[in-house]
Amino acid sequence: MPLFTDLVRSLPASVPFVGPEALERQTGVRFKARLGANESVFGPSPNAIEAMTRAAADSWGYGDSANHHLKEALAAHLDLAPDNIMVGEGIDGLLGLLVRLTCEPGDRVVTSHGAYPTFNYHVVGHGAALDFVPYRDDREDLDALIARTRELKPKLLYVSNPDNPTGSWYEAAEIERLIDTVPAETILVLDEAYADMAPASALPAMSVMRPNLLRFRTFSKAYGLAGARIAYAIGEAETIVQFEKVRNHFGISRVSQVGALAALRDQDYLRRTVEKIVAARGRLAEIATSAGLIPLPSATNFVAMDCGGNGAHARAILEAVIRRGVFIRMPGVAPLDRMIRVTVGRDEDLAIFETALGEALAEVGRPRTA
Amino acid sequence: MPLFTDLVRSLPASVPFVGPEALERQTGVRFKARLGANESVFGPSPNAIEAMTRAAADSWGYGDSANHHLKEALAAHLDLAPDNIMVGEGIDGLLGLLVRLTCEPGDRVVTSHGAYPTFNYHVVGHGAALDFVPYRDDREDLDALIARTRELKPKLLYVSNPDNPTGSWYEAAEIERLIDTVPAETILVLDEAYADMAPASALPAMSVMRPNLLRFRTFSKAYGLAGARIAYAIGEAETIVQFEKVRNHFGISRVSQVGALAALRDQDYLRRTVEKIVAARGRLAEIATSAGLIPLPSATNFVAMDCGGNGAHARAILEAVIRRGVFIRMPGVAPLDRMIRVTVGRDEDLAIFETALGEALAEVGRPRTA
Repeated sequence: MPLFTDLVRSLPASVPFVGPEALERQTGVRFKARLGANESVFGPSPNAIEAMTRAAADSWGYGDSANHHLKEALAAHLDLAPDNIMVGEGIDGLLGLLVRLTCEPGDRVVTSHGAYPTFNYHVVGHGAALDFVPYRDDREDLDALIARTRELKPKLLYVSNPDNPTGSWYEAAEIERLIDTVPAETILVLDEAYADMAPASALPAMSVMRPNLLRFRTFSKAYGLAGARIAYAIGEAETIVQFEKVRNHFGISRVSQVGALAALRDQDYLRRTVEKIVAARGRLAEIATSAGLIPLPSATNFVAMDCGGNGAHARAILEAVIRRGVFIRMPGVAPLDRMIRVTVGRDEDLAIFETALGEALAEVGRPRTA
Repeated sequence: MPLFTDLVRSLPASVPFVGPEALERQTGVRFKARLGANESVFGPSPNAIEAMTRAAADSWGYGDSANHHLKEALAAHLDLAPDNIMVGEGIDGLLGLLVRLTCEPGDRVVTSHGAYPTFNYHVVGHGAALDFVPYRDDREDLDALIARTRELKPKLLYVSNPDNPTGSWYEAAEIERLIDTVPAETILVLDEAYADMAPASALPAMSVMRPNLLRFRTFSKAYGLAGARIAYAIGEAETIVQFEKVRNHFGISRVSQVGALAALRDQDYLRRTVEKIVAARGRLAEIATSAGLIPLPSATNFVAMDCGGNGAHARAILEAVIRRGVFIRMPGVAPLDRMIRVTVGRDEDLAIFETALGEALAEVGRPRTA
């Protein structure tokens, strides 16, 4: 009799994303600019840092397992009730719980080919079968996703808006059409990690609620608290309460709880940060264009840059940039893998990237496929 | 077609432990002493607080998903290899992953009746069937646990040493006999959350390794970092690597990573804290005895106190203590539920408890069953 389940024995010991520290240890390179994980180099609100600094000494106590104050504040901010919100250990943690709540071996899940690998990791980890819809014109193909979903009636349909890794986005009306069209037996997993820096016109009203709709937002991106591991799901109370059946109740760090609360309360800082993100996005697009790459429009804190060749060509550029001490990433699957993906940063970060990119392109040359 | 799995629809939305903040909100009482969750009121090393304070501003970056430095340091400290160690979001988080790795609906799991509720929550949450062996003389009954395990060949056998909620412990030789006797198809889940404050004679050597043995330790108890959510599992590399298939790779807060590392490096502080814990344990036993309760011997940072009656009597005392602003807990099931469980604290915390206990006993009276 084996110690582990059949499913577990069939799984690889995999890592959806190799972190920059691991990459430094593997390559021996020390990163001068960290522009690969869509973190916010601009950092969190000084109020959040101050609150976390003060809370460090309170770490002898467990955090509030109900996340009461944060849920109250989020509810007030979003004009929802606290029981419309579930706080968790990052969107990654919440997605893992959602897959567990919904999927059994053999169940189907629909996503786009090249979309979020960590979601896929959780789906595979619970034995469900992923069905991939290709991107179309470097955006998620909503019509094809709807058609496939109506055909397969999967447990979950994953859509990110704005999208990672392309940076593309849909207007709220198009997302609402998606919401209205998803079959009642499928939960629409609407990953809005980048919502706080997207145009308001891209976000359906919070009042758009369905039993089979869950939206995911985070303090990791615009709020600058990736290291705090704190995010939240939004949905109807009957759906949200399901997480109580399986979550790690005391899973959120006490320091992170106060940091997120302080960050949420400093909307001025968030606005100023989003202005910096928008400006840096423009600067990144200029850098790409000057270098002969094609920057994709982005509503996020990163810019995907079409390198004009195939996956091998983009990977060669990526590796040459990394060797020069700049951490960036690239999409994993074709046709998106002809791009590199660069997170916004301060002027000094972008200058370092610009130099590294120029040298990398000089080294790698024009695409062999051109 | 329902949105959630059959298993999930059969589960209650439950909370293994109601936290003190939630209890304050429910009761309207404001706690003057927090002695219910076996946290360390003595706090973490000042070096850990300092490191966490400095790291707060770095929270814009994800933590190292490999927990490299912490695993290296733990390996050096325990004289193991880094691949014998898995870092996770508290023992709770690691136990949840282990149940997922091993249990399918219908599988059996053996534990003691009255042992760790959060473990049971995870087992039920994965559809496995719990089989309970009664405590004997207010200790886990190792012989009965072995007999039941040999009979049922469960996926998991849970044993905590030292034990929560009784505070009892076994000597290393007895635990090693258990390790040698567990059937090869059963993983022995050896919860050593309180190991850092136990007599060294209670802990098997780290060199005792089996494919079906996992030991769990934490920074939440003696190290005083409950709020940081960071713990680790110890086992053979082939067993430990299974966690890579299902874990939330970026689940640990960056601030917590540096806090745990600094705490581990300050073994002097740990030693002094353990001295305080031992002294406070003695003081708690005196308080219990003076009040006419019977304190159980403890190798942990809490003392279980036999109130001499039944569950209703102990609960009345518990509630009367809580009404007086002292957070304590009690075991949930008979016969352990004739006790209250009080965490050690500073002199001022214990003085507040002593007063509250005296008043509570005056109010509740002698056991009705006596």
